[in-house]
Order: sequence, then C-alpha cells, then structure tokens
Amino acid sequence: MYRSHNCGELRLENVHEQITLSGWVQKVRNKGGMIWVDLRDRYGITQLALEDEVSSREAMETAKKLGREYVITATGEVIERLSKTNKIETGAIEIKIDTITVLNEALTPPFTIEDETDGGEELRMKYRYLDIRRSPVRRNLELRNKVSIETRKYLDQQDFLEVETPYLIKSTPEGARDFVVPSRMNQGEFYALPQSPQTFKQLLMVGGIDKYYQIVKCFRDEDLRADRQPEFTQIDCEMSFVSQEDVMQTFEGLATHLFKSVLGVELSAFPRMTYAEAMRLYGSDKPDIRFGMEFVELNNVAQNKGFKVFDDVELVLGINVEDAATYTRKSLDKITDFVRRPQVGANGVVYVKCNEDGTFKSSVDKFFDQEGLKAWADKANAKPGDLLLVLAGDTNKVRSQMNELRLHMGNELGLRNPKVFKPLWVVDFPLLEWDEESERFHAMHHPFTSPKEEDFQLMDSAPGEVRANAYDLCMNGVELGGGSIRIFDKQLQKRMFDLLGFTENEAKEQFGFLMNAFEFGAPPHGGLAFGFDRFCAMLGGQDSIRDFIAFPKNNSGRDVMINSPAPIDNDQLNELNIKLKA
Amino acid sequence: MYRSHNCGELRLENVHEQITLSGWVQKVRNKGGMIWVDLRDRYGITQLALEDEVSSREAMETAKKLGREYVITATGEVIERLSKTNKIETGAIEIKIDTITVLNEALTPPFTIEDETDGGEELRMKYRYLDIRRSPVRRNLELRNKVSIETRKYLDQQDFLEVETPYLIKSTPEGARDFVVPSRMNQGEFYALPQSPQTFKQLLMVGGIDKYYQIVKCFRDEDLRADRQPEFTQIDCEMSFVSQEDVMQTFEGLATHLFKSVLGVELSAFPRMTYAEAMRLYGSDKPDIRFGMEFVELNNVAQNKGFKVFDDVELVLGINVEDAATYTRKSLDKITDFVRRPQVGANGVVYVKCNEDGTFKSSVDKFFDQEGLKAWADKANAKPGDLLLVLAGDTNKVRSQMNELRLHMGNELGLRNPKVFKPLWVVDFPLLEWDEESERFHAMHHPFTSPKEEDFQLMDSAPGEVRANAYDLCMNGVELGGGSIRIFDKQLQKRMFDLLGFTENEAKEQFGFLMNAFEFGAPPHGGLAFGFDRFCAMLGGQDSIRDFIAFPKNNSGRDVMINSPAPIDNDQLNELNIKLKA
Repeated sequence: MYRSHNCGELRLENVHEQITLSGWVQKVRNKGGMIWVDLRDRYGITQLALEDEVSSREAMETAKKLGREYVITATGEVIERLSKTNKIETGAIEIKIDTITVLNEALTPPFTIEDETDGGEELRMKYRYLDIRRSPVRRNLELRNKVSIETRKYLDQQDFLEVETPYLIKSTPEGARDFVVPSRMNQGEFYALPQSPQTFKQLLMVGGIDKYYQIVKCFRDEDLRADRQPEFTQIDCEMSFVSQEDVMQTFEGLATHLFKSVLGVELSAFPRMTYAEAMRLYGSDKPDIRFGMEFVELNNVAQNKGFKVFDDVELVLGINVEDAATYTRKSLDKITDFVRRPQVGANGVVYVKCNEDGTFKSSVDKFFDQEGLKAWADKANAKPGDLLLVLAGDTNKVRSQMNELRLHMGNELGLRNPKVFKPLWVVDFPLLEWDEESERFHAMHHPFTSPKEEDFQLMDSAPGEVRANAYDLCMNGVELGGGSIRIFDKQLQKRMFDLLGFTENEAKEQFGFLMNAFEFGAPPHGGLAFGFDRFCAMLGGQDSIRDFIAFPKNNSGRDVMINSPAPIDNDQLNELNIKLKA
Repeated sequence: MYRSHNCGELRLENVHEQITLSGWVQKVRNKGGMIWVDLRDRYGITQLALEDEVSSREAMETAKKLGREYVITATGEVIERLSKTNKIETGAIEIKIDTITVLNEALTPPFTIEDETDGGEELRMKYRYLDIRRSPVRRNLELRNKVSIETRKYLDQQDFLEVETPYLIKSTPEGARDFVVPSRMNQGEFYALPQSPQTFKQLLMVGGIDKYYQIVKCFRDEDLRADRQPEFTQIDCEMSFVSQEDVMQTFEGLATHLFKSVLGVELSAFPRMTYAEAMRLYGSDKPDIRFGMEFVELNNVAQNKGFKVFDDVELVLGINVEDAATYTRKSLDKITDFVRRPQVGANGVVYVKCNEDGTFKSSVDKFFDQEGLKAWADKANAKPGDLLLVLAGDTNKVRSQMNELRLHMGNELGLRNPKVFKPLWVVDFPLLEWDEESERFHAMHHPFTSPKEEDFQLMDSAPGEVRANAYDLCMNGVELGGGSIRIFDKQLQKRMFDLLGFTENEAKEQFGFLMNAFEFGAPPHGGLAFGFDRFCAMLGGQDSIRDFIAFPKNNSGRDVMINSPAPIDNDQLNELNIKLKA
C-alpha cells in the first residue's frame, strides 16, 4: 500500500495513528541528529521527522540521501508538533518516521518547484509536467475543473442536454481558417476540425433537442496573437423557442452561478448597452465599466477655433481623468509616447489641466483661451484638479485609439482591480461589416445570425445599417462570450448568403444540409458560447489564458514539450495520397 | 413568448390555466367540426382541441392547413379530457385552443417521425436531424447525457480532476493509424489527433495531479469494421500511488454507480478470471458469462480411437448444450452451416446427443462406441437430454471457432438476455504478442504497460510468456474498457521499447518527452479507459453504438448528412504547402 492518507489531511485528531504517506520531497533539512522532510502531493505538505536513536539507522541513511523531487513512501506515527505553523494545513502535526522507501529518484529540476519559481516561460512550457507540480498552476487546473462541474450542474438543472458533436466535419471558407485532416479512405478529400459546433447545434434544434450545451474544443488556424491558442474550449449552448431576452436571462444565470459557486462573489447587475453606445462612449464593443472616463465628443467646442489639427477631422474626442491635473511634464510625455506606439497609432495627445484655482493649462493654449478651455471642461464635467486628454481624427480610428488610452489610464491609476467584476451585455450589433480588402460584406457574428425585424426594410437599401439580434457578454474589458438569435427561415437565410456574396451554388455546397434542414420544420432558436479558457482566467483573476490550459501551445502553435507539429513518414503521406510541395 | 409550458408537463391540476405551447405537429385528426392536433416537443405530446363555434374561425382555418412536422405556437385553456389516455403523460388533459400561429412549415419528412419508422439506415443518417426527433434516438442521447453526468459525479466525489489534454499532438507509428493535420505555420510538419490521451495522462501523473479523468474524443484512422467509428469517446482515467487492486476497485465502483443511477440495476459481483483461463474456458478475452457452456477439452477421451480428424490436431474441444438432444437433423445442419461460415472457418462440427434413455447418438458413431461417447459426456458433465458439440484443430483456431459457436448457441437458446448484466474482470493479459507479419513483438495493451514483477525473469528468456499488470472489464461478451499499471521506471521503459524493436533513437524521437519526464520523479501510476459509446449502448440494452452518437459516420468514415470529407480549395492546399498526388 502506497498510502493510508494524503499529504494534506492529517490533523491533531490523528495523533498516535500509524500512517503511510507517498509524495515528492519538497525540502530536506538535515540538522545533524535530526532530519526533517517536507513531503508534498496534490493535497498538501506534511512534515516527516527523523531522529538518531529514535528512527531506524536505515531510515536515517535513506533520508540523508534524499534529493528534491524524489518520490518516496514513508510510514510512521502522527505526533503533535512542538512548533506549530499555520502556513500549511497539516501544520499542527508531524510524522515520526519508521521507514522510508525511495520509489523513484529525480534529477535536479530545471527550475524550482515553488509558488514563485525561477523558471522562465519557455523552460516551464518545455517541462510543463514539472510546472504543473507548482501550486499556482495546479490551482488553476483545479479551478477549471470546478468551473466545468458548476457549469454542467447549472445547465443540467435547466434541462439542457449535453450532446457531443463531431470533430471531423467539413471545411467552410467563411470565417477563420480551418485546420484540415486528409482522409485516407476517401482520397483527395479532407475533413475539417470545427471552429465551433455552430451548424450542428442548429441541426440539433431542428432535431427537437430544445436545449443543448457542450463544453467542447474548437480549432482555428489563425496567426496567433498573444494569448490565442489554435485549440480552445467553449461552453457552447443553443435553445429553441426563445427570444433574445430568454437567452440573456439564462446565461446571466449561468455567469451568476459560476461567480457565486466558484468564488463566492455575487454579481449584482448586468447592465446593457447597445453596440452604438459602447462605441460612442468607450470606443470598444467590450467596455471595461469598472471605471468611468467615458468619451466626450468635443467637436462643437473644439472645432473652428483655428487649430487645424482639430478642424479637419471627423471627431475630437476627450476623456476626463479625475484628479490628474498634477501630472508632471514627464508623466504627460509618457502618455504621448503611449499613444504614439504603433499598436495605438495616434500622432499625439492634447491635454488640458483643470487647475485647482479654476484656471486651465493646455498644450494648445495658443489656440484656445481660458473660456474656450472651460467650455471643454464643462462639456466633460471636469472638476478642478482633473485632467482632460483629447485625441482627434477619423471616427473609427480615434475611438479605437482613445479606447487604448482610456484602458491605459485605468491601469495607471489602479482603476482596474482584478477582484472587482463588472459584467455588461452589449446588444444590437451590426449584422454586417464591410471588408475593404474583399470589397464585400462579412457577417459580423456569423451568417446564421438574424437581423432585427424592425431593420428588415434596410436590408436592400442600407445593409450596413441593419442591426442583428446579437449580444455579447463582456466583463472588465474582456469578451466572455456572445451569441445571437438565428435565422430559421430558409428564404431569409438565402437572402443573407446573397448579401454575403455567396452564389446559390456555393451556399448550397457549403450549407446545403442546413438549408435542407430548414425545409422540414425549423423552430425559432438562438444561443450563445462562452470562451471557457477566458472565463476561467477571469475567475482566476488573471489576464493570460495559458496558465489555465494544462498543455498550451506557444505563439507559433508549437507544443514545445512534445515537440509538435513534426514531420511524418513518407509512408503516411503516401497512404493519404498527398505530398509536400517542394 | 413562445411557450409558458412544454408539451410534457400539463396535468389535471393545470385545468383552467391559460397556457401557450410550441412544438411540432405530430398528427392532425379533422372530424368535420372538430379538429385535434397532437403537438410534440422533446418533453412530450399534448393534445390540442378545436371546435366550430367554440374556436375562432381563424384558428380553425389554420388548423385545417397544418401538415406533419409544421412548427406552431398555440394558446388556449387547459381542460379535462373526456376520454383520458395513459399512453402519454399529459393524457388527462387537452388544450381548448384560442389561437394558432404557424412558425414554420415543413415538407413531408422522408420517413415517419415515430418510434417505429419506415426509414432505412441510409436515409435516417442523411436526415439525422429528423431521426433525432424520434423518441428512441432522443432517449439514447438523453441516456448518454445522464451517463456523462453520473460519471463526473462519481469521479468528482472520488477527488478526480477532469483535465483537458490537447487534440493537436504528435504522430507515433506505434498502435493504430493516426489522423494527421498539416500545419500551416510550421510547413512540412503535421499534428496528429490523439488515439487516446495516454502519454498526456501519464505526464499529468508525473505532474502530481494524482487522480485524472476526462470524457474525451479519440481518433483512429482504421479500416472501419461494423460498429467502429473514426472518432469515439472514452472515459479516460489515471491514478498515482495505486496498485492494480486500487484501480479495479475504483472502476468497479464507477460501473456499479452507473448501472444503479442510470438503470436502477444493482450489479452484484465482479468476478475475475485470468486471460489464460478465459481463453481456455471461453476462447475469448471477453467471455459472456450470462450462461455456462464452458469449453471442455476432450483430447484424452477422443484421441487415438482411429478418428483421424481428431488424432492429428492440437485440441479437441466440446461444449455441452443443455436440453438440446432433441435437435433435429435440420437444426444440426444449420449448426454445421454456421461453423462453416468464413467468419468462423471450421470444416464441420461433431455432435453427440445424450438421449433421455441413457444412450448416445453421434455423427461419429463409426469411430466411437457407446462407452467411448459416455466418456465424453462424463467429462463434459452432460446429462441425458443434452447435446455435445465438438470442434477440433489448432488450439488458437479451434478456441476462436468454439467461442463463435458458443455465442451462437447462446443466442439461439435465448441465454443472452440484454436486461441481464454480468461484468467480469479479465486479468493477467500477456505483455506482448507476436506479430507474424512484421516478425516482432507488439505490445498487447500499449508500450507503457508494466510487466508483472514475478515475470521479470522471463523478459529475456521467454518474453512471450511475460504477463502484464493489465486488466479489462468486460460484460455480456463485450469489452467495456481496460487498463494497466504503467511502467514508471526509465530503465524498464527502455527495456520495453527495446523488446518492441525500437532503436534508441526512435524511442527518443517519439517518446523522448515521456522518458525525460521519468527522470524527474515519476510516481507509480496506473489507469483505465472505458469506451463511452459502448458503455452507453450496453446501458441502453443495444448492440450498436451508432444510435448513441448524435452524428455518427458510416462505414466509409463519411458523414452523409453534411457530405464530409470533401475536396478543399487549391488555395487551402497551397497555404498548407501540400498537394494531392496525381
């Protein structure tokens, strides 16, 4: 028997029991006649104690030779500890050791297996199995497990059925790039890995499943930006006979349940904002509303005063940074440096300090007198002591730049506390977005999203203005997930494919099965998907999803631990009837 | 609002309530002034009633035009039904309809959406979304959902962590054929889809996760025999610091919990049998022990009596079929036909009828007198009225043939009741099996399975005789799953790769990451995987796994509904740097 208990469960009430523990050697302290060993497993750390005369010579000898991360089994008696500690849960006891057996030796690990490690990202990924021994990583995986359990508990109680959809499906050019899988049995043909189970969950609705969910892997062959993974996990859901309101209520419920059951946090309110308003006030479709600093449009107070930089632009946009009028030259220069970064892309920033004495000091004093600047301050509700930051340019560009600046200022001023959670529904997304490159409309969400009935009339005249029954749940500036009410009428779906530039044949070839299904009694339906990795990172209070994934890939899509992808045999290529291009 | 209730929940206590239902039209009965509509959704069927003078003219007109599988919303009052029925759960009430709205029309479905359908397999697969509307298929998916919930409940209570392992991994030539995924970002290189998370779960054990599980899709590019799927689901588990006994106890517990919670069936006992015994008594490593008919070796009573067919063979093998002495010539001929099928491959069968009067009648009376036949009967414990069936040949071949014959007779005699569940652990599998074609040993389980310590000494002298710490759980002649205690010592793992004919370089290239991991303190560990599709089919009392999979593929690995796999664009091929061979 390798163990009678684990390393996290022994307490004072176990004193005098004869027990066996197994685990990894965390630390050995050898004080001559006394040796202490910290033994670690997933559940905790227990101190083993050995002493000359008391312990057997054999056990003493073994203990002396133990190295870090050796795997051992030890037997002995639970005794009360003289110097108790609260740092570990077993801190009231230790084990008076009779025997120690080394089950496996260990080389010195390439980084320390402790909460704060000396290992860099690269090294920790290569030896991910050692990284996982560290409590912070293990706790993330435990949290992820808990989130999946609570997700299923909630959805099961709401009569959702988890249904597994296939992984070997068909490639569709719409959307992101597919990973494909050559078929050996059907040569020259390929499966694709799903970017999401979208069409299958809609078919399940046609099939009368009524409420579907799945915690499911999805795949996108995209150039990986920081913190994107080629394979990622979704909580994917779909419901029949529902309105947008029904779906939103259901998943507010899920989010509330997860925060409550996993963190003990009560999410108080889920305010809603239209996409148009979010763009106008925050320049983002996923505003962080933990802090204010809403955008203020200054055109009518800032234009036509002779300052050309403002006069020729679509939009002059300000934010009011409270209590920041005391910013030094150096601090203001840093803000200018920030907005000039290529990722932000502004030429510069105009500031107005609202001094405590009621005067104003700005970088454009040449063009605007005190009265003029007061008009800005009034418009922005700036108080004495506040700082106005102003950008100008094309509407979309300047909003996007100001969004970056706002979040940056939020970070600088400590307004983005990761322990504060502010959910927000963003609704009424546009149905379509114009793609300059291909000179056609793309579906903003996906081609199955339904337009708002009141905007049907715009579909011919102004398709770019049609709003969709689409909604995103965001939190703290991050998109947790989104969804839409789907088209369930075959004619409307055809019209949509048409708007997206599909020929009838293309539509039929790629989505014929769905169009067919719509002939046989499709119910109204809609759904939503949460990004599971992202949701876990949010609950864990961290920005990166990578440490909530057991075996993540790096930014080149490589698993550096197993060294994958890798070349394959010629025999394999031949069997698949493919070859590499020269 | 599409509904206030679903179609399965209204009862007498709801009478007088004003309600709204949505669903599919199952049936319309138009009796002139009265129309009844059976409205169906996932939860049940409710009868809608319309009547001239009582219902609005508009509702009557709409009802008259309804076709099968139309999707409608109907509003009305719950009333007590005059002629109640027990056939449906809502049989005590019906709905006096005020309004009906058609949400979607439907073409006549290509097969009837009823428990017994007129649709053939092919058609039902092509229109799987319609097939899923049928209760038997939907119930299978509901059962599957329940099994996954109960699996997680049990394993969670036992401190198992569900950890997601990656789907884009690395190809290894050992085992079955991999599906591969060309990498665009790492041209000329490929990912592989996992045949199982085997190495990853072992790395999780090295990582101290201690108890891991996952309900996970696995992929094998095999030529598909009946009832094999290229993608299938496993309940995959691994535990650290365990003996074979610990693992078996844990998963007996899981199986017991699943049968109890899903079916209300108490599995009484999990007997155990060695592989050697299973082969000797049943000619199978997954014996169906719902009935007896164990093999009886008759060599010493049947050989050297001048019957050449018996004299020259390794094994003369009989089974005793109780109360079958009255079989007619025709029935016996049918048995001969059965064993002569190419799938069985015997030349013929010898029978001995043990007549009620104590005499014997056999097909080999020429060679064996009454005394001789009595010796057979005694050896087989045959009573008057029983029938002995005897095959002879090479040991392995004749055991395999007799296994087929025994199962056939079990079916014929109704001894294989799908409502009776008899689990059996088969243990002590051989570590290796000799492959005639490649003239080398293959791992019977996989290369990470540990040999029994008491057989270490045979590893050099007689590797084919080494037994493994491997175990299968079978039931009713079907393998539900299996596992093993793994090698956790680097040297032993090297020795194993050596026995399997890997060069040191090959072993390093393919499994270097695991060998490396074993350098850093690997704990003793072992695990098991259940075939999830198979487990569900067993609980559902059915042979085929296909109807427990929402969207299965056919025997050519095709999804005939979405028509996949399919050709992909040249652009896609170019981006992946591959081309089709001519």
